[in-house]
Amino acid sequence: MTESDLPVVQLTPGRWGDPAATTEIPEAALAALKHLGVRRTAASVPEEPAVEGSAPDVLVELLGADYVKVDGETRWAHTRGYSTPDLLRSRAGDRADMPDAVVFPGSHEDVLAVLRACSELRVAVVPYAGGTSVVGGLAPDRSFVAVDLRRLEQVGEIDAVSRTVRLEAGVRGTAAEAALKEHGYTLGHFPQSYEGASIGGYAATRSSGQSSAGYGRFDQMVVGVTVATPRGTIELGRAPMSAAGPDLRQLWLGSEGALGIITSVVVRIRPRPVERFFEGWRFADFRQGLDAIRRLAQDGPLPTVLRLSDEAETAVNLADPEVLGGASGVQVIVGFEGTATAVRRAAVAEVLADEGGEPLGEEPGETWRKGRYRAPYLRDPLLDEGALVETLETAGFWSKLPDLKAAVTDALVESLSGTPPLVLCHVSHVYETGASLYFTVVCAQADDPVAQWRQAKTAASTAIAAAGGTITHHHGVGTDHRDAYAAEIGALAIESLQAVKRVVDPNNVLSPGILLPESATAER
Amino acid sequence: MTESDLPVVQLTPGRWGDPAATTEIPEAALAALKHLGVRRTAASVPEEPAVEGSAPDVLVELLGADYVKVDGETRWAHTRGYSTPDLLRSRAGDRADMPDAVVFPGSHEDVLAVLRACSELRVAVVPYAGGTSVVGGLAPDRSFVAVDLRRLEQVGEIDAVSRTVRLEAGVRGTAAEAALKEHGYTLGHFPQSYEGASIGGYAATRSSGQSSAGYGRFDQMVVGVTVATPRGTIELGRAPMSAAGPDLRQLWLGSEGALGIITSVVVRIRPRPVERFFEGWRFADFRQGLDAIRRLAQDGPLPTVLRLSDEAETAVNLADPEVLGGASGVQVIVGFEGTATAVRRAAVAEVLADEGGEPLGEEPGETWRKGRYRAPYLRDPLLDEGALVETLETAGFWSKLPDLKAAVTDALVESLSGTPPLVLCHVSHVYETGASLYFTVVCAQADDPVAQWRQAKTAASTAIAAAGGTITHHHGVGTDHRDAYAAEIGALAIESLQAVKRVVDPNNVLSPGILLPESATAER
Repeated sequence: MTESDLPVVQLTPGRWGDPAATTEIPEAALAALKHLGVRRTAASVPEEPAVEGSAPDVLVELLGADYVKVDGETRWAHTRGYSTPDLLRSRAGDRADMPDAVVFPGSHEDVLAVLRACSELRVAVVPYAGGTSVVGGLAPDRSFVAVDLRRLEQVGEIDAVSRTVRLEAGVRGTAAEAALKEHGYTLGHFPQSYEGASIGGYAATRSSGQSSAGYGRFDQMVVGVTVATPRGTIELGRAPMSAAGPDLRQLWLGSEGALGIITSVVVRIRPRPVERFFEGWRFADFRQGLDAIRRLAQDGPLPTVLRLSDEAETAVNLADPEVLGGASGVQVIVGFEGTATAVRRAAVAEVLADEGGEPLGEEPGETWRKGRYRAPYLRDPLLDEGALVETLETAGFWSKLPDLKAAVTDALVESLSGTPPLVLCHVSHVYETGASLYFTVVCAQADDPVAQWRQAKTAASTAIAAAGGTITHHHGVGTDHRDAYAAEIGALAIESLQAVKRVVDPNNVLSPGILLPESATAER
Repeated sequence: MTESDLPVVQLTPGRWGDPAATTEIPEAALAALKHLGVRRTAASVPEEPAVEGSAPDVLVELLGADYVKVDGETRWAHTRGYSTPDLLRSRAGDRADMPDAVVFPGSHEDVLAVLRACSELRVAVVPYAGGTSVVGGLAPDRSFVAVDLRRLEQVGEIDAVSRTVRLEAGVRGTAAEAALKEHGYTLGHFPQSYEGASIGGYAATRSSGQSSAGYGRFDQMVVGVTVATPRGTIELGRAPMSAAGPDLRQLWLGSEGALGIITSVVVRIRPRPVERFFEGWRFADFRQGLDAIRRLAQDGPLPTVLRLSDEAETAVNLADPEVLGGASGVQVIVGFEGTATAVRRAAVAEVLADEGGEPLGEEPGETWRKGRYRAPYLRDPLLDEGALVETLETAGFWSKLPDLKAAVTDALVESLSGTPPLVLCHVSHVYETGASLYFTVVCAQADDPVAQWRQAKTAASTAIAAAGGTITHHHGVGTDHRDAYAAEIGALAIESLQAVKRVVDPNNVLSPGILLPESATAER
């Protein structure tokens, strides 16, 4: 099964993914959890609250009654995202983040009309694409209308000469791949949320996929962007690159709904790979593995997928520790896609061996590949068992990564000392000058697991800032990272973004409180 | 001689480059010019106007009298840039664009202090780095103080692990290469203005160098940027890439002094190449050559330098047309730098041959390499002879390039029909989805050559917009492209930039009229 064959997952609050594809925790892992003090809790997803509303007449007039929903089921289905605190709150039936209504515009013009109307009514709007935010990106600071973009599902005509295509914001990643496959192309963007996420979300959050070494980040794939705002349309991207002022595509990519709703993007596409090969390598320790993948990132050649797990993640990920020869160590996964990959594979193998790596063959690579979208499924039964499981990520320059990793780990361990955690880490996105760090934390739930995680997360965020990392490498800002983000880019930069927001959104209805703190002058 | 050995050129208004390195026009070319109706004019560079001023006390207090100059010579040396209209105006002694004073801050803090003082005084400021603008980027719409950044010349300590270094804005490209060479590194940024341009200019204008296929554009090399504004400092770039909101580095890169003065950048560096190889290829026509370089850009491998001249440019550039086998055709230059380039050379050769190319050997490659910074020198004697010579550039997606090229050529030919022009074109920067087009125009000067070019340029700009190209690929916006730029990105995007400007520059003193049109609300 390749990426284009995966089904679209209909998400429901409180649990990730396809209900038919839930995951059991292995017996050995259950035993290990007990050592962490994990005990089963009663939490489960309650029935959706039936809170019916009344539809704003003006929206019904614009879109028709079929496309303006105020029933409890639809509203509940659009309530918050899939961070662990989100899951815990949804399981507890907390409907604080539920939209007042959900609208389903069918075109860019529909979105424009909705935004104009909501601006006039002073009603907040939040775009809803795949709904997979893990940073509170769907929960503004007041009551709101969710703008579900699923009807913006057009895949434009492929420009085979330029290798570009226009994709509307509501096109699922899976649907884009399926459509491109028919013509022999791929986008090559496979984030872990791939089964649920959509093009608009990729663009609005600067998503980065698991094949980023080969295909780049989503913001590097976008060559054109179309944005609807209460004041009209912004259309950017007449050339791959330009010196006509700042690259303003990069001002709307990553703007998370706060500066408008991205309704479509023109993206670079590539021929579908005809070969695929994944394999594992073992290194003595994280530092040695880091040197090896840095050499590939800086001097090449780059595989399509390049990941390094630290000692703790390597041990946990391996059902059978003997795959690593029974010894301690860390695992690197390299993946190759394309044509004639053998030359590249040989060159990469030479570098990895030269840096002290031992080849583990295809099995660990295939195991990773097959399980690449499974991790979020595992979180639900873990939460059921009473474990607290959450992830966070950062990025920094190579020279700072070892200290950054140690600082975040220490902060998490110290903050969660009452429920001693497992802290796992991997590097999954590399650049010439640095890389990402992705942490997974597992511990026993305290009495108030949401507060427990909030405290741990604050400690980790403080450590990231102090160690010179960025608050997020690919999850985005949302509400969870808003304050840390403001501190990271500084008051003048935040004021600059708020000023742009006032231009395109004079009544401050676009995702208020998401990405940007409310400005003193925003209310007028 | 390599790039790091080139001397820094001290520019003077009216003529490009090192006075000791002026170029003679070959006899054959002189004869060809006569066919275009070119006749010698009397224009030459007059003595600089001696217009002494008085220094604002507050600036003297901040920087000391040595670093605040109001003498005519210094002011004249900072008057406008090096477009052909600039040269013609300077040769005519036009001092309209002369600054009232030139200040030489020695640090980021000095720049901050100057900007604060000038904002308080409501005195416009324009940063002056290399001074090589060809788009009116040094000529604001009112009297101003030029902020010469040459004393910001520090090259920071190299981070050999991350392969980054901080470079201050006044560091010349040549000085940066010389400093990096000592440690075995290169920046790899070699625009045609390399002998005169500086890091701050590269960053503020999103410069692209002749080796962009191998090293990328300057904006792709920058991982951190520090900006001084009247309201304080903006410091961006904690990681190679991030999902923490929009990539705001890209808002200040390309901002051309209008949103602050970039005082330093952190750039990615690379090991110095140990091998270098340039060669020429012949294709039957531009279309065939375009297909060939597109295949390299899309499927690889990419050489370090990749250029395609059209039929007209190929014929003009070749002193000896028999190099192309006496036949018509177009020339492609490919250059390779790095280690073990032989494999890449062979792979590129295979693609070029497969696309119908004939190898011409190293001679055309070396000829291009040796002359790569010479073209601007040739313009001066051509102007002396009565020729009008100017360049302009655009970029677009591959599928649009043939029509874009034809539209611009037609517009220039029609607009200059009274003085029938030669219009030459090349592609020198390629991307997966498109490429740049660079035009050189040669014709006889009319009575008012500045007005003559303005009309031709307007026609070309209109054609670019209609054909879907961007108004500039690497020259920047300045004042020359301001209106076309505003039309290209649209009213909401321009308003957004103006709003950012009001945040960082509340008294509108930063390069007024450069990049951005004055906003209705900018004056307060």
